[in-house]
Order: sequence, then C-alpha cells, then structure tokens
Amino acid sequence: MRDTTTLYQHGTLAMLVAGLFEGTLPLGELLEHGDTGIGTADCLDGEMVIVDGQAYKVQGSGTVVPLTPDTKVPFASVHFMDAQEQRSVVGVTDEQLKQQIQTEMKMDNVFVGLRIDGTFSHMHTRAVNKQERPFPNLTAATRVQPEFNADQVSGTVVGYFAPHLFQGATVGGFHWHFINTTRNFGGHILDFTIDQAEISVQVLENLVQHLPINNTEFRAKNLDLKTLSDDINEAEH
Amino acid sequence: MRDTTTLYQHGTLAMLVAGLFEGTLPLGELLEHGDTGIGTADCLDGEMVIVDGQAYKVQGSGTVVPLTPDTKVPFASVHFMDAQEQRSVVGVTDEQLKQQIQTEMKMDNVFVGLRIDGTFSHMHTRAVNKQERPFPNLTAATRVQPEFNADQVSGTVVGYFAPHLFQGATVGGFHWHFINTTRNFGGHILDFTIDQAEISVQVLENLVQHLPINNTEFRAKNLDLKTLSDDINEAEH
Repeated sequence: MRDTTTLYQHGTLAMLVAGLFEGTLPLGELLEHGDTGIGTADCLDGEMVIVDGQAYKVQGSGTVVPLTPDTKVPFASVHFMDAQEQRSVVGVTDEQLKQQIQTEMKMDNVFVGLRIDGTFSHMHTRAVNKQERPFPNLTAATRVQPEFNADQVSGTVVGYFAPHLFQGATVGGFHWHFINTTRNFGGHILDFTIDQAEISVQVLENLVQHLPINNTEFRAKNLDLKTLSDDINEAEH
Repeated sequence: MRDTTTLYQHGTLAMLVAGLFEGTLPLGELLEHGDTGIGTADCLDGEMVIVDGQAYKVQGSGTVVPLTPDTKVPFASVHFMDAQEQRSVVGVTDEQLKQQIQTEMKMDNVFVGLRIDGTFSHMHTRAVNKQERPFPNLTAATRVQPEFNADQVSGTVVGYFAPHLFQGATVGGFHWHFINTTRNFGGHILDFTIDQAEISVQVLENLVQHLPINNTEFRAKNLDLKTLSDDINEAEH
C-alpha cells in the first residue's frame, strides 16, 4: 500500500555513530516503503538519494552510481511523495528557506518530507568515503570528507525535518541530499542558493523506526548515549 | 491486519512532560494497532492497562474503570501479543527478573513487549491523579501520587523495554503497569515479587511513532529537551 503519511526509517543514526556500517536491509525492501528519501550504502559507501523510486549513491570520489535493489543499506529514510504544500521560490539561500518554512509551518514537533526541484546558482556538497572493516566510528570516518561545488546546476534536493526529540534516532532538524538532473553531481548538502525552484513540503504523521533485530553485532553493541548528540553534530552538520 | 512485529505508540512522553495531557486519539483507533499495552487517559486520568483487547484505567483513588472506545488518550503504547519466548519463574523480584531477561535476550538496542501472568507475593503500584486545565507539567502533576500495595495477588503485568536511545519519545528501559485478575487493583508498577508466573517476551522489529499533527497546541509547544531526561526519571521511576 502506498502510505503517504509515514516516514519509514531503517536503522538509526546512533548505530552509524557507533561504527555499525554494514548494510542490513536490501534497497528493494526499503523501496516498498517509499519512492523518495536519503541514506547511505553498505560500508558507509556514499550519500544516497532516492528520487522517483530510483536510488543513487554519490561516492567520496564524486562519482554518482545508480543502485540496484540488492544493494544493502545500514541507514535510510524514505516516504511516498504527496506534497501538501507547494510553492515557488526565487533567490534564497538554504538558511533563509529553512527559517521561512519553519515559521510558516509550525513544524518543530513533527516529521516533514521535503523535495526541491529547480536550478541553484550555487550548490555545495560533500560525500563520505567507503569504509573498510574493522570499521571506525562515524566521527573518525567523517573527519576528512571530499567537498564539491557547482554553479547554475539544475536538480533535486531530497530530505527531512525531524523534531530535535529524535536526535540520535535520526538527525534532529534539517537533513538533505542533492542530485543534479544529469545524475553526475550531488551529495550531502552543506549549503546552497536557489536561483528558482519549486518546494514541496509534506507533514508526516507516523515515523516507522525499523531495526535490524536479527543482526548480532547490532544486538550486542553498546551505544554511548552521553556523547551521541555532540558526535552527530560533528559528523552531520 | 494483525501485525505482531510492531510497537505502536501514540504521542510522546516529552509531550506529557510539557503538560500536553489532552487526549488526542480515541481508544477505538488505538486498539486497531494492538490488543496489549499501557498508557494514560485524557487529562492524565490514571494508569491505563490493556489486556486481551480491553482497556482499564487505574485512577488516583485506586478505582479501576473499564474504558470505552470513545475515550481519548494523549499517550499510549500497544502491540499484538504473540510471545516468542515464554518461561515460568518462581520467587523473583522485578529487579532480578529485569537483569535475567536483559542478560539472556541481549535486548539493550531493541523494543520488547512483556506480559507476566501469575501470582505476586507482593505488588506495589501508584496511580496519577486526573489533572485540571490549565495543565501543570508532568513533574508538578506527579509530585504527589497515591501508592497501593497488595499481597498474594493474581493478575497481569503489561509493559515494554525500550532502548535508552528513545528516552524522551518514551521511557528508556522497563516501563510496566499491573492489573489484578478481579480488575479492582492495579497501577504503574513501583516494585513486585513474583510468587509464580509465566513471562512472555516479544522482540518488536518496528516502532510506529504516531503524532497528533493536527493538534494546534502540540504543533506550537516548545519542548524543553535540556531537562527532559531528568524530568522523565523524576516522574516515571
């Protein structure tokens, strides 16, 4: 069933922080729960973006690779697009846009799916490098990350706003990835300036948090909750 | 569909901590997602226990009241019982039982549904008093709570273990309520000693976190996350 009220998340950010980078859900199963989303691939291999049911990873080299349904993911969030609010914007930065949406939508306590289609006078991203076993933790894995810049690029931003209450399970606040129209540039967004774009905003009533309960490494892992929020802010922002 | 892999939660504990005690989901809708669970009723009116599809509230007076489907709840957790692990125990306290289950099940990172049926040589509970508008916060509302004791009482414990990562959305660790077989004694459990009982343990793969996205008070509320965990520990343990 195509449920447009639900954000489906496999794995938690806390698991990545602890170095659990092994893929635990096939992409094919993830896509049963949404056609739009973000995440990462097995071994923390790149920044995943899902647009119109097709997943891509932007690797640390900058290369964009379409993903097949057998790719396993350790952490990903998806939903079925059905925008309740759409608007056109011209000449705003990511920070201006965040403020504008947050003020208008009173969305601090709810999960929101976001998609932005348009042209960006500037887009600044980064992408994580694939990790080798034994895996380091997320802070070590993300200490050095290649960054990428493009001007006058058309493409799609996909991401979420999550209540800060859920920081740790996911990223509290905004978290979004980009892929360009020609599918050869993208990544985790650091900042952007919109030239002109359509913004789609979708308040989601449910979070489904799915956990890899049969993964023995996950079951046995001791998550350090004391430093979790600081670790996330260092690695994800 | 009777989904036995999912813990369904309406509302968050953080909302109760902030004084959002108004019921936002009819019990009838909640029970579509489970036949077993715990929670509270509109205006924080008592400790709710759901056993075999029937909900009861144990009020601050100690009175046990069966609830009808139109009762609204601000916060509740339910699942469909389908125990994977069952065992008989004799002569253990709640603290001994918790340690025993946690060690054997390696369940620190997963959600677990628990049900205990048997006789208890001692059962010590408490129940919260119904609150009046304008609502205080949870710490103030639970500062004085009537406590209840019973010896050689037969009945049912229902509750959950939640990963500490989800403290705030819910109670991290164990959280369970009791109702006796004759349905005239129960409440939020402070401690117990089992005489003899059957323990049912069910690891749940999904948490569905449902939020009252159309409640304007909820949408506008500023949740104080800095003091949240301390507030929960004061009010719930």
